[in-house]
Amino acid sequence: MATAGKVIKCKAAVAWEPDKPLVIEEIEVEPPLENEVRIKVVATSLCQSDLYFLFKDINKDIFPIVLGHEAAGIVESVGKGVTEFQPGDKVIPLFLPQCRECRLCKHPKTNLCEKKTPGQSGNLKDSKFTCKGQKLHQFMGTSTFSEYTVMNQNSVAKIDPAAPLDKVCLIGCGISTGFGAAINAAKVEPGSTCAVFGLGAIGLAAVMGCKAAGAKRIIAVDVNPDKFEKAKIFGATDFVNPKDHSKPISQVLMEMTSGGVDFALECVGNVEVMLSALEACAPGWGVSVIVGYTNLHDISIRPLKLLTGRTWKGTLFGGFKSKDGVSEMVKSYLDKKVKLDEFITHNMPLDQINDAIELLRNGKCIRTVLNVSPQ
Amino acid sequence: MATAGKVIKCKAAVAWEPDKPLVIEEIEVEPPLENEVRIKVVATSLCQSDLYFLFKDINKDIFPIVLGHEAAGIVESVGKGVTEFQPGDKVIPLFLPQCRECRLCKHPKTNLCEKKTPGQSGNLKDSKFTCKGQKLHQFMGTSTFSEYTVMNQNSVAKIDPAAPLDKVCLIGCGISTGFGAAINAAKVEPGSTCAVFGLGAIGLAAVMGCKAAGAKRIIAVDVNPDKFEKAKIFGATDFVNPKDHSKPISQVLMEMTSGGVDFALECVGNVEVMLSALEACAPGWGVSVIVGYTNLHDISIRPLKLLTGRTWKGTLFGGFKSKDGVSEMVKSYLDKKVKLDEFITHNMPLDQINDAIELLRNGKCIRTVLNVSPQ
Repeated sequence: MATAGKVIKCKAAVAWEPDKPLVIEEIEVEPPLENEVRIKVVATSLCQSDLYFLFKDINKDIFPIVLGHEAAGIVESVGKGVTEFQPGDKVIPLFLPQCRECRLCKHPKTNLCEKKTPGQSGNLKDSKFTCKGQKLHQFMGTSTFSEYTVMNQNSVAKIDPAAPLDKVCLIGCGISTGFGAAINAAKVEPGSTCAVFGLGAIGLAAVMGCKAAGAKRIIAVDVNPDKFEKAKIFGATDFVNPKDHSKPISQVLMEMTSGGVDFALECVGNVEVMLSALEACAPGWGVSVIVGYTNLHDISIRPLKLLTGRTWKGTLFGGFKSKDGVSEMVKSYLDKKVKLDEFITHNMPLDQINDAIELLRNGKCIRTVLNVSPQ
Repeated sequence: MATAGKVIKCKAAVAWEPDKPLVIEEIEVEPPLENEVRIKVVATSLCQSDLYFLFKDINKDIFPIVLGHEAAGIVESVGKGVTEFQPGDKVIPLFLPQCRECRLCKHPKTNLCEKKTPGQSGNLKDSKFTCKGQKLHQFMGTSTFSEYTVMNQNSVAKIDPAAPLDKVCLIGCGISTGFGAAINAAKVEPGSTCAVFGLGAIGLAAVMGCKAAGAKRIIAVDVNPDKFEKAKIFGATDFVNPKDHSKPISQVLMEMTSGGVDFALECVGNVEVMLSALEACAPGWGVSVIVGYTNLHDISIRPLKLLTGRTWKGTLFGGFKSKDGVSEMVKSYLDKKVKLDEFITHNMPLDQINDAIELLRNGKCIRTVLNVSPQ
């Protein structure tokens, strides 16, 4: 490529400060160093985590920043020592690396990895992005609200060349997170009764995961009943709006299921809902998995809720080892074993990202896919 | 028996009010009704739960009460419809029934049971005990600080006639609770690293369980270093006194194990320790089990501690289905596969129960066995 080894000037949506609209700017993206890969981002979607850091976790130290972490693209150029990728490969950037070498990668029970991609250090000198003479932070190492980004090869998954990038971009976070939470973390069993709290993309993917695992009954819970029709498409069998009940929602589910659900997945990122999901589980064997992200508040729990035999756990990226899981999920989509198209409610160019943010913030979309660069 | 069908007058240690010494009184014990069994208590030990309800959970409604739930005895007489037991059988009273018929008993994953033994109803009219014309509450349905007690047959385990009652009484609560927590709830794996918080009888039994499950390293944690010698006998390999460290104990264990333990068992019944035990677990796969009982305070936890892949659970009676588990544990003791004698530091007659309470309260004993009736 003519651009290999050179700084690329391109378009990106920059968050200059918290709680403000993003600004489309021209930024400079450095060429990849040893073991690094520069990626042309073709499609990116928005996820609640992007909004969480923009609006909720008001940590001023991360600004200015280029957000975005659910994307797909094409390798533009590679640094020294990169053998796994070459220009033209279709890839998905990973906010969770998989180096295959550290003690965590070698452990069969976790998908954590000890490595970081450069932009994950939090140290501005590691960032590959500059705008108007100022270094920009890279969000989760990925920063996909940019036409180009640079990542360590540990944080990139090569995918099937047949994969449509404007669909499989969803696999980079939400869909894998929800689907994997049901399959890998909860380990939903055939014939079981499940409850999924929150019917955003992650929750709907969790419903799809419960269905794939053979759950007999999947109770979809959301305060927005507009989501129920969609949840049905992914396999939900029962629909509960907590606003329709004066009792606590955990009690409603306890009564509906004569004693509690086998598996409950919290896909909202709200500590009250996390507690409700645990309480809705059957004492004795119920398993509740925290999937939604939040780290602003503590959850307060009375020990007896666990002592009576419930299990509480959490998972990041659905428990998938990231490179392996993403390739598998892309294959499952191409084999029509998992749905993706049904999550996409809107398509827009990157320039309209602030409209996309408002749609997500107001629960008016499931996923908006932003077209970032032409293929 | 000459006493069959009649009220028995016998000795019991009565707790007339919270936070006061027990009083040895003559009480009347009713004969067993349909499906009930009257048991001559031969030996009982004291457990922290007895003290918890006497001193900590100051719920005045449960007084006057006969405490005690870790015991062994001999069937004195049986009510109509009882075919599983006959007078002279050696038995262990169970605070957790196993009816074998309810949906919980039939569920392979739990040891809970929907039935209650009469004294567990909380309703004084169901109590079999009277003293000075006043009904007494039965504690956990068992009330073994009495020469005689009456229980539903669902709450009694028949044991090997060769079993020494002044030893196997420990199987009625603490030893099964701790041992089972490691084996059944944590499912400790061969070669793993474990931490046990609190080295009372339950904690020492948890150490023994970790060892039986093949753990390679068992870190025993207690603020009383006098307990370490005993922990060694049961299989502990490392010993940590939190008072020797200025850092949080979870951090000390993280450093000792290069990233956290595989399994952590909380055997204290303290919400701060429950949190430390969880935090000492390896992110990604660590499993923490709450074994110690408390229900006075909430635990406050930041969701990220679970989101990073830890599992938190609790267990009552070590996850053993009670009748089955107690018979198994007695057999394991007779086969020298589990230790019991090593837990017993003191023997006393029932009359000295207040001395036994002070020993346990001040951490000066592991288990005191009280001789209640001659065999």
